[in-house]
Amino acid sequence: MSSYPPVKIGLLGLGTVGGGVTHVLARNAEEISRRAGREILISHAAARNLDSTTARTAGIKLTGEALEVVNDPDISIIVELLGGYEPARSLVLRALANGKHVVTANKALIAKHGNEIFAAAQAAGTMVGFEAAVAGGIPIIKAIREGLAGNRLEWVAGIINGTANFILTEMRDKGRDFPDVLAEAQALGYAEADPTFDVEGIDAAHKLTILASIAFGIPLQFDKVYIEGISRITREDVAYAEQLGYRIKHLGIARRDERGAQLRVHPTLIPQRQLLASVSGVMNAVLVRGDAVGQSLFYGAGAGAEPTASAVVADIIDVVRTLTVDPDNRVPHLAFQPDALSDLPVLPMTEVETCYYLRLQAVDRSGVLADVTRILADRDISIEAVLQKEPPPGARDVPIILLTYRVREQRMNEAIAAIEALDSIHAPVVRIRMEHLNSD
Amino acid sequence: MSSYPPVKIGLLGLGTVGGGVTHVLARNAEEISRRAGREILISHAAARNLDSTTARTAGIKLTGEALEVVNDPDISIIVELLGGYEPARSLVLRALANGKHVVTANKALIAKHGNEIFAAAQAAGTMVGFEAAVAGGIPIIKAIREGLAGNRLEWVAGIINGTANFILTEMRDKGRDFPDVLAEAQALGYAEADPTFDVEGIDAAHKLTILASIAFGIPLQFDKVYIEGISRITREDVAYAEQLGYRIKHLGIARRDERGAQLRVHPTLIPQRQLLASVSGVMNAVLVRGDAVGQSLFYGAGAGAEPTASAVVADIIDVVRTLTVDPDNRVPHLAFQPDALSDLPVLPMTEVETCYYLRLQAVDRSGVLADVTRILADRDISIEAVLQKEPPPGARDVPIILLTYRVREQRMNEAIAAIEALDSIHAPVVRIRMEHLNSD
Repeated sequence: MSSYPPVKIGLLGLGTVGGGVTHVLARNAEEISRRAGREILISHAAARNLDSTTARTAGIKLTGEALEVVNDPDISIIVELLGGYEPARSLVLRALANGKHVVTANKALIAKHGNEIFAAAQAAGTMVGFEAAVAGGIPIIKAIREGLAGNRLEWVAGIINGTANFILTEMRDKGRDFPDVLAEAQALGYAEADPTFDVEGIDAAHKLTILASIAFGIPLQFDKVYIEGISRITREDVAYAEQLGYRIKHLGIARRDERGAQLRVHPTLIPQRQLLASVSGVMNAVLVRGDAVGQSLFYGAGAGAEPTASAVVADIIDVVRTLTVDPDNRVPHLAFQPDALSDLPVLPMTEVETCYYLRLQAVDRSGVLADVTRILADRDISIEAVLQKEPPPGARDVPIILLTYRVREQRMNEAIAAIEALDSIHAPVVRIRMEHLNSD
Repeated sequence: MSSYPPVKIGLLGLGTVGGGVTHVLARNAEEISRRAGREILISHAAARNLDSTTARTAGIKLTGEALEVVNDPDISIIVELLGGYEPARSLVLRALANGKHVVTANKALIAKHGNEIFAAAQAAGTMVGFEAAVAGGIPIIKAIREGLAGNRLEWVAGIINGTANFILTEMRDKGRDFPDVLAEAQALGYAEADPTFDVEGIDAAHKLTILASIAFGIPLQFDKVYIEGISRITREDVAYAEQLGYRIKHLGIARRDERGAQLRVHPTLIPQRQLLASVSGVMNAVLVRGDAVGQSLFYGAGAGAEPTASAVVADIIDVVRTLTVDPDNRVPHLAFQPDALSDLPVLPMTEVETCYYLRLQAVDRSGVLADVTRILADRDISIEAVLQKEPPPGARDVPIILLTYRVREQRMNEAIAAIEALDSIHAPVVRIRMEHLNSD
């Protein structure tokens, strides 16, 4: 499809997120090259464990010395997944000086040293992507920096630490105390052995620093964020807040008025009807208020190997698209390169499988339900629930409501025709499709 | 700040959305040029009403002849806001042939003629932006095309027509019938005099066509979408669905499996706990399932002059950034150009205003609440609610919970110090900040 040679990537760090990036790039290689216009390969990685199965399987050259990757002349893009300030900062600056583009998931690095790093990138004429630094898989950096660029942004409020949100959700749902839930979160791997960064708000403050900068056009100022964690929240406060119509969430809030900007991370009561109040467990969400768009919410997984890899790979594709195609068609109109569209057929509705809600108007006599369920059973249509209502006063017919499991529309059409042919059914069957929108 | 001359825009159509675009570009001119690196001016517009106050105020040259704008040599970007297939299609093709970039909010045009238009843009080496064509102000095109580009997208399900969602929300909340709510929606201006496009799902099908293409990498195929509207949904079905734990939403669904792609718009029962089920009124939301990111939700205003203008202006800025800066720093790292960051001060926490939740442990005797409320009143701190609980069995102290209206943190610190100095108060006051996250 493309005449460009593959772009070679160097990974710094092959832990959880590094493994995720490796897997996503390998698993989706075909679609990714159709989107990016070019193949993307990880060719060199620095890791502590030089025996990594992931690396061996993927044919990645491994080293214990990160500088070797940063200085590898074959590599165009360095992906920094070490975390922390050093040696990440020095390695990123060296990579930029070497003319390489950088993609990082390191919120601490960007919040604290971003001003320096961006100046170095500007001087070197290279790119730095950091979508994964805030809210994991949610493309919130891109949304604010590009998608909402026409707005004057008034405030941003986000649930941007999954661990803290998980703990508060459990405290509320189960009436448990903070230390108790923290111990469980640690056992489940949602919280680190040293949970300070998450529960005391430092991680959220790193992310908020970045959000405030891109929302208001101010330099990164991590040291000016007011930070308060959730460790002093009690189950009593959680319960009282609920009784008053509120929910306690650990929010990062950036707001501005004529006097200045506010950057603060603290437990916050918000109205229960607010969409943010429904964001539970380890999920993240960012609510943005712009003068033109009004309120806009971005929700998704804020951490984990694959969601973080989703953002890292998106940044890599951004860089590759810029390296590859002409600027006027950097991003293909239909997301995939025009010569790489697929001829996947569009199925007729009769071939689609869904669950169904059926409402029948039936004569109120015994045997009707048996007839209907036999028609469905004969066609292997399983019933999830039946709701039979009293007939309205004076009415001869009773409504019967059925929920079915998944079945192909064609077969449901046949079943409905058979049901409508029954003497005891007087009106056309009402059929509404049903979707659970769960993970499969 | 920038040495580039202003970019000149030509508008086709100066109705609701055209007015919105004009106002947003004028109101946010300073921030927009700091983001885009260049001033953006509307210099020429085609409109039916040559007496437009908007145009006169903004100093825009007006014409009744759209071709004049499309052929104006000073103009770099044509913004097409006419709607419908023709003459929009011919004018857009002409603009591209003239070497101009195009930004459009026209979902019908893109769904039906997008393949032809994109090929023409590719041939001409110009850009076409259509973020405003789907879900108004929500940057969902950018999110799928770029932000989630590392994923294999499995399905997309969206509430992408605000009118239909408003009607279904009213039917549920107030137990009203379809024709009744439709009439109200028309009176409120949420529905057109001829509501067919909205309530029969054609508008949603246009948008779904676009979403399916960018999610799966297939050509635009509007004629293959299965379309069913909401006009046959009764309040009884809405109520029965609720009793069974579901909610009826009008969804556009694109899904793929090994057999092919499904493109369908129809009323759908979804579980009440699903975040999409909480999207009410005229709001839009798109739920995307990717193999790496999991489920991600994008929520916001799907229509209206200003939200649509938000997307149109974002597309204009995208084009201007590409025209202006070097490709490696097309989008500035911190959203605003590096020489255009603001020195807006970050306020100390004592200067921040919020509402507060206070919990006091007080001796169970009369007069305590009076003392506390006097301390607050002396500092002009107004109380929104008080919750006084029974003391736990055997306990000497009772909890008193107060919610206050907005006050500066400094003053609240003083009030808390005074409360803690009372003889009747035995433990530090618990203080949790409260935000309503409403529109101000």
